[in-house]
Amino acid sequence: MTDVLSRRDLDFLLYEWLDVESLLTRKRFAEHSRETFDAVMDLCADLAHKHFEPHNKKSDAHEPTMRPDGTVEMIDDVKTALDAYSAAGLIASQFDESVGGMQLPTTVARAAMAWFQAANASTSSYPFLTVANANLIATYGTSSQIDDYVRPMLEGRYFGTMCLSEPQAGSSLADITTRAEKQDDGSYRLTGTKMWISAGDHELTENIVHLVLAKVAGGGAGVKGISLFIVPKFLPDGTRNDVALVGLNHKMGNRGTTNTLLAFGDGTHSPSGESGAIGFLVGEEHRGLTYMFHMMNEARIGVGFLAIALGYVGYRKSVEYAKVRTQGRALGAKDSLAQPVALIEHADVRRMLLAQKSYVEGALALGLYCSRLVDEQDTTDDDAVRTESTLLLDVLTPIAKSWPSQWCLEANSLAIQVHGGYGYTRDYDVEQYYRDNRLNPIHEGTHGIQGLDLLGRKVTMQNGAGLVLLVSKISATVDAARGAGAGEFADLVDAATRRVGEVTAALWSTGDPAVALANSTVYLEAVGHVVIAWMWLEQLVAVGDKTGNFYDGKRQAAQYFFRYELPKVGPQLDLLASLDHTTLDMSPDWF
Amino acid sequence: MTDVLSRRDLDFLLYEWLDVESLLTRKRFAEHSRETFDAVMDLCADLAHKHFEPHNKKSDAHEPTMRPDGTVEMIDDVKTALDAYSAAGLIASQFDESVGGMQLPTTVARAAMAWFQAANASTSSYPFLTVANANLIATYGTSSQIDDYVRPMLEGRYFGTMCLSEPQAGSSLADITTRAEKQDDGSYRLTGTKMWISAGDHELTENIVHLVLAKVAGGGAGVKGISLFIVPKFLPDGTRNDVALVGLNHKMGNRGTTNTLLAFGDGTHSPSGESGAIGFLVGEEHRGLTYMFHMMNEARIGVGFLAIALGYVGYRKSVEYAKVRTQGRALGAKDSLAQPVALIEHADVRRMLLAQKSYVEGALALGLYCSRLVDEQDTTDDDAVRTESTLLLDVLTPIAKSWPSQWCLEANSLAIQVHGGYGYTRDYDVEQYYRDNRLNPIHEGTHGIQGLDLLGRKVTMQNGAGLVLLVSKISATVDAARGAGAGEFADLVDAATRRVGEVTAALWSTGDPAVALANSTVYLEAVGHVVIAWMWLEQLVAVGDKTGNFYDGKRQAAQYFFRYELPKVGPQLDLLASLDHTTLDMSPDWF
Repeated sequence: MTDVLSRRDLDFLLYEWLDVESLLTRKRFAEHSRETFDAVMDLCADLAHKHFEPHNKKSDAHEPTMRPDGTVEMIDDVKTALDAYSAAGLIASQFDESVGGMQLPTTVARAAMAWFQAANASTSSYPFLTVANANLIATYGTSSQIDDYVRPMLEGRYFGTMCLSEPQAGSSLADITTRAEKQDDGSYRLTGTKMWISAGDHELTENIVHLVLAKVAGGGAGVKGISLFIVPKFLPDGTRNDVALVGLNHKMGNRGTTNTLLAFGDGTHSPSGESGAIGFLVGEEHRGLTYMFHMMNEARIGVGFLAIALGYVGYRKSVEYAKVRTQGRALGAKDSLAQPVALIEHADVRRMLLAQKSYVEGALALGLYCSRLVDEQDTTDDDAVRTESTLLLDVLTPIAKSWPSQWCLEANSLAIQVHGGYGYTRDYDVEQYYRDNRLNPIHEGTHGIQGLDLLGRKVTMQNGAGLVLLVSKISATVDAARGAGAGEFADLVDAATRRVGEVTAALWSTGDPAVALANSTVYLEAVGHVVIAWMWLEQLVAVGDKTGNFYDGKRQAAQYFFRYELPKVGPQLDLLASLDHTTLDMSPDWF
Repeated sequence: MTDVLSRRDLDFLLYEWLDVESLLTRKRFAEHSRETFDAVMDLCADLAHKHFEPHNKKSDAHEPTMRPDGTVEMIDDVKTALDAYSAAGLIASQFDESVGGMQLPTTVARAAMAWFQAANASTSSYPFLTVANANLIATYGTSSQIDDYVRPMLEGRYFGTMCLSEPQAGSSLADITTRAEKQDDGSYRLTGTKMWISAGDHELTENIVHLVLAKVAGGGAGVKGISLFIVPKFLPDGTRNDVALVGLNHKMGNRGTTNTLLAFGDGTHSPSGESGAIGFLVGEEHRGLTYMFHMMNEARIGVGFLAIALGYVGYRKSVEYAKVRTQGRALGAKDSLAQPVALIEHADVRRMLLAQKSYVEGALALGLYCSRLVDEQDTTDDDAVRTESTLLLDVLTPIAKSWPSQWCLEANSLAIQVHGGYGYTRDYDVEQYYRDNRLNPIHEGTHGIQGLDLLGRKVTMQNGAGLVLLVSKISATVDAARGAGAGEFADLVDAATRRVGEVTAALWSTGDPAVALANSTVYLEAVGHVVIAWMWLEQLVAVGDKTGNFYDGKRQAAQYFFRYELPKVGPQLDLLASLDHTTLDMSPDWF
């Protein structure tokens, strides 16, 4: 069995490229060393292979069900795995020592978490959501909220959720109808229905901490009126809160993570003798969406990692398969008495493997680069560096979420194709990765939402400072690559980057947002490819003239990306530059 | 509920574009009329919606199982639907009156069959395979084989299969090891194992007619030694033949069609007191692959139709959803008190719908165009027309199989995306279409095999006559489109087509097949896009200056394809022209 990720690649990215060791001089990480980082990675790889991977197919085949009494039944392996995860203290890996955390750099923690995401996407989602939830409360909650909720979450005794969507309001949070009414004791009573809540109910932990968006009277229309509440399944006194599982959603993939429809305050339970879910305000009223976006940005990069991890494990398994499965003859030897050759001897199979390699390693580089920006933002002493890191992270977040969701899914499709008919069966793993990964372009902001975020907000905010910064960063890499003998590819990236700048200006020069944004998804995809090309250029610089199979593989995957992938950007930017009206002019009646 | 296909579009393609009525002057179709064609279409649409669509999700959720006694259990709805299909005489729709057929043109029969493929891909596969099997025996079998097998198949009393692959030999048929030994009575005894046999066992019919590739001693190495046999599950005297179901494959999609591992001659049964599956030679020894390829080419176009049908129904359901589901505000009205708008009001949603429309209607046009060539080939009195039709069909077959498999699958992904989170659940239909459709790039020759077929064989055979013919056909359409006011798009198709000719010559000018074929899949995809662009140009010519929503929709979908899709070909042809060595130079050790 192959490992679900490549430790060699992670070490290259963390140490030979991102110089994570330089973070050790920061006060926050002073207790750490390369050895502690390595120990965490060893531990995670070990736990992921031992406890997470073995039940990945099983939890897909036996998805959670709702019992008549409203509780959730699922295979025991999930709890066993998560208990091992919690016992190792991994939920707290990035948190402050003051709340029991390890204070690991985000870059290392994300890489460590990726082992679990690759081994078992569904089971990994429970702690993933818990970390995001705990991080939000730790940032915006009161000290008693931290004690009551963050600490037990970091110990793995409670798990967390984020409750944003409702049946009628997915992408459009302005339309949520869940309401919160203030009580005399300062708490609130919530009523409403939340949809698509991952990990929304289960019996894995003593308690579940829901973070719920709801409207309080007087908040105004739309998103401005939204506040954020902690709504625990069990209240601090142990009584059952009025949160009820209405149903489980049955998904194409990611089946092991319960995905729920939850009723808040429908009277199923009566805490303190009354219906209504008791909730505790986080921060101030009407600022809920701001807090939630803190978590959302983190979650978006996390979704990117989930997509990367699924792409990566599929890539590794298809490489392994292509090396052992024989089929056909070398070109020119067909129909002869020659022995069949391994699949990997066929150029078209190597094309499918190189494509996967260029997607998953390029995406992993971007995910870790963004994580490195988080560490910079959180721990630098230099205000200018912090501001710059935050700005660059803002611009890159929609791409770090959407690009892996699109292209690592494509990698999973290629992994199936390498396996032929076997890949289409549930006897092999790759079809599940493909189904699991198809979720990622949808949740935490759809592909279309990311496009609007990038073109409509991120590249225009602060008078376009984000885009200017991105371009300057790419230019620096281009210069370095020219010095490192990768001038041919550096020129391609340079030209594409300049073009992105021109096209962005052209789009907004119209003064008509409808025209500028008509093809924002195409823009997202084009800029995404340029950014990944930049990540490959960065890796080439880090590779330098080092020798050996690993570095040769990096060079060849980079070459693949520059020759096969980056040129796809040309027609996309041409379309954008033309201010095409095709979709705007299309009448609904013409379909 | 929306219809699974658009009758309006089918009528446009059949009558306004392909002029199927002109076939009525042919002797074979003399008994037909527009009225009989319409009656068949009405009947098929009705049966498909009444008997096939209702159990589509059910047969996905309750896939067939193997009972301890080796028989197959499946939901009753499948047999009910297929009995209705058979009772209507539809299996025989294209066959000669002499064997009880309707003598429908292939173009009409394919369009009619597409209703069932769109309504229920899995259930439609049983008659699809039976038709292909019966057609082969009707063409190459003896009159007693026709009586014994073709007639009961056309009546729906027997179903047929094609048994090519083995566990160790999928794409590489030269490596099959199933053997046939001639008996004194002229029959053969077969021993071997066949894998991936769709409809390989079930209790839907009295008997199953397997067409089996096997090697007879003395046939030489590789594919030359392969012969073709009829191996019925029950012999003409009613005894059980030695064919045993070893296991069912459990697939990601297409779950309703049994897909089997079959043992021939393993002694599970002992016809005439001995183990060994009794088979009857079709045609001559050692010519099995030639006969099978007759069926295979037909099956490849059929797989294309399956992909198209799945893409089409997903497209229609996502249009319907986008018209009724409200979400978000019109641009510029966000956060106001304005009412939410239908999804279809968002430009990016229209982009996803237009993309689907351009894929599925473009692919359907190609499928029907190829079917029209089959009718020309089969019924024209003009030898030159027949030769030309066969040649053009040969060139287009790999594209008619692969292009829909790739792009109508992409359409299914977009259909999910339009549905958001709901599309990812099994409560909606679109996720199943996506899973079902993922099979189509694999079976009946993988995507990679189609690329090798197109670039390695089809465009080089007869000194490149096939490509010359294709180019001349496209040029004629370009001229017609210029005359019809579509000059801008005609120019694009013209330029791309010329480029294909140049690049093909450049690839083969190397004299090194390894270099020429290194990127044959990229070639397949590029030529595929040019061919579909041609199909859109053809449709534009047929639309002319007609007015109304339907024609406006055609114009806009064509424009979408020319602006968003055709330009993708540029970088692909650039890569091919560069004779890129990236995949050739990649060492297996570098992965």
